[in-house]
Amino acid sequence: MDSSIPATHPLDLATRLTPAGEGRFTGRTSPAYWNMMGPFGGTTAALMLKAALDAPQRLGDPVALTVNFCAPIAEGAFTIEITEARTNRSTQHWTMTLSQENGIAATASAVFAKRRETWAHQPAACPTIPPFETLAPMETEGRNAWLQRYELRFAEGAMTFEARADTDPGPSRSLLWVADKPGRALDFTSLASLADTFIVRLFLVRGRMVPAGTVSLTTYFHADAATLAAQGAKPLIGVADSSVFRQGYFDQSAELWSAEGQLLATSVQTVYFKE
Amino acid sequence: MDSSIPATHPLDLATRLTPAGEGRFTGRTSPAYWNMMGPFGGTTAALMLKAALDAPQRLGDPVALTVNFCAPIAEGAFTIEITEARTNRSTQHWTMTLSQENGIAATASAVFAKRRETWAHQPAACPTIPPFETLAPMETEGRNAWLQRYELRFAEGAMTFEARADTDPGPSRSLLWVADKPGRALDFTSLASLADTFIVRLFLVRGRMVPAGTVSLTTYFHADAATLAAQGAKPLIGVADSSVFRQGYFDQSAELWSAEGQLLATSVQTVYFKE
Repeated sequence: MDSSIPATHPLDLATRLTPAGEGRFTGRTSPAYWNMMGPFGGTTAALMLKAALDAPQRLGDPVALTVNFCAPIAEGAFTIEITEARTNRSTQHWTMTLSQENGIAATASAVFAKRRETWAHQPAACPTIPPFETLAPMETEGRNAWLQRYELRFAEGAMTFEARADTDPGPSRSLLWVADKPGRALDFTSLASLADTFIVRLFLVRGRMVPAGTVSLTTYFHADAATLAAQGAKPLIGVADSSVFRQGYFDQSAELWSAEGQLLATSVQTVYFKE
Repeated sequence: MDSSIPATHPLDLATRLTPAGEGRFTGRTSPAYWNMMGPFGGTTAALMLKAALDAPQRLGDPVALTVNFCAPIAEGAFTIEITEARTNRSTQHWTMTLSQENGIAATASAVFAKRRETWAHQPAACPTIPPFETLAPMETEGRNAWLQRYELRFAEGAMTFEARADTDPGPSRSLLWVADKPGRALDFTSLASLADTFIVRLFLVRGRMVPAGTVSLTTYFHADAATLAAQGAKPLIGVADSSVFRQGYFDQSAELWSAEGQLLATSVQTVYFKE
């Protein structure tokens, strides 16, 4: 690992869980990943996954993770409770809740599995993107803290902050390089968080910030722990797009590719919007 | 509604739930939607959603549904337990488990919301497909019962049942018309089930049936109850595809469009495979 990478990365601090009895962990929100009104959803997803990753009886690697954002998470302490719904020979099913003083703020489920080599085939094509070095990083100074924890280098669909008319929506697709900042060796915790780094498509399409918030996020992991570890801290290629904005909700999908063209994760989310 | 539509549709019988106390329903698997080794996953998804739809304190329409298939569901009775994780002013979060004698067979979560008219925009393009009447229905006689409950008219990517070499995978995409058989007015229950009618992409790509089973399914609903009701029993346009098959799992995504080009639902699933 690059010697410039700190021993204790902000993401590891933000996703630190303290065991607090059978199926119970406590943690604290991190100012380093603060979003507008609460913690960045990616860190919440990473925390829910980490509760299962940290469970002593955990089997294999995560395959699927769904997180439902029930209420804003307040700054401070929270408790994650985790239930092993079922363990089979090669799969394991978990459900989680994240609670604070005023009730449940998030629920989640995860499927873990022992992965092994099988016939493989990748019908999806890795998008063509200019080299990382040739693109400028998004300027994040003065923006929400979480944005400063990622290096985003857009080839297409950068946020312009130029408001568009209702009748003239901008393109919803982005193509970019994305990496933890500071760099961090890839694992499931960081990949779960990276899957939520694609700026709300609504902001892009409307050219301005409007009230919006993710209500549900599902991420599929398409590689085992060894494949992720082999990535080290190299930037990933990201693609994000939306299908439809209607009646207060829109969907958003994302792909995360290795520089070598291996699809590591795909993700979908549904997002509330007000106007 | 068409007078040829029976008053009690097989899907309504298959998703009938009997209240059995606070947050508890009982039901029975239906032979009419039997798959190879258990009930068709679409009906399980519909049942999980229906438990929330039937809950007296239910708020609004479903926006997101995730179902995790933990173990094969045996023929016979099951219990669904449902928990209201959080209710806000305009959103409501549910979690469910489906149990049989030998433990939890499925878990689920759903987000409901009061939907209202907002700015709307549909970046996704409805695929071009020949008219329903011009395409032949898939022959389902002698196949698993659930397949006989749907009319599938393929324009592209029909199942060929012609085995392909490992090194020569077929295309993973299908484009088709899909409808309940017999016809049934569209609602969230049937849409949740329709989202799982896209034949396992692995069978298509390999040209043969191989051991495989969905472990997690997420569906987003992009329309309110009134929009679905206005569809009546008209066939929908369906598209399905996969991104990657690797280390025992692959993903599968699907879109369900109205004939008028409105995206009604999108869905993703991750599927276990053996070989």
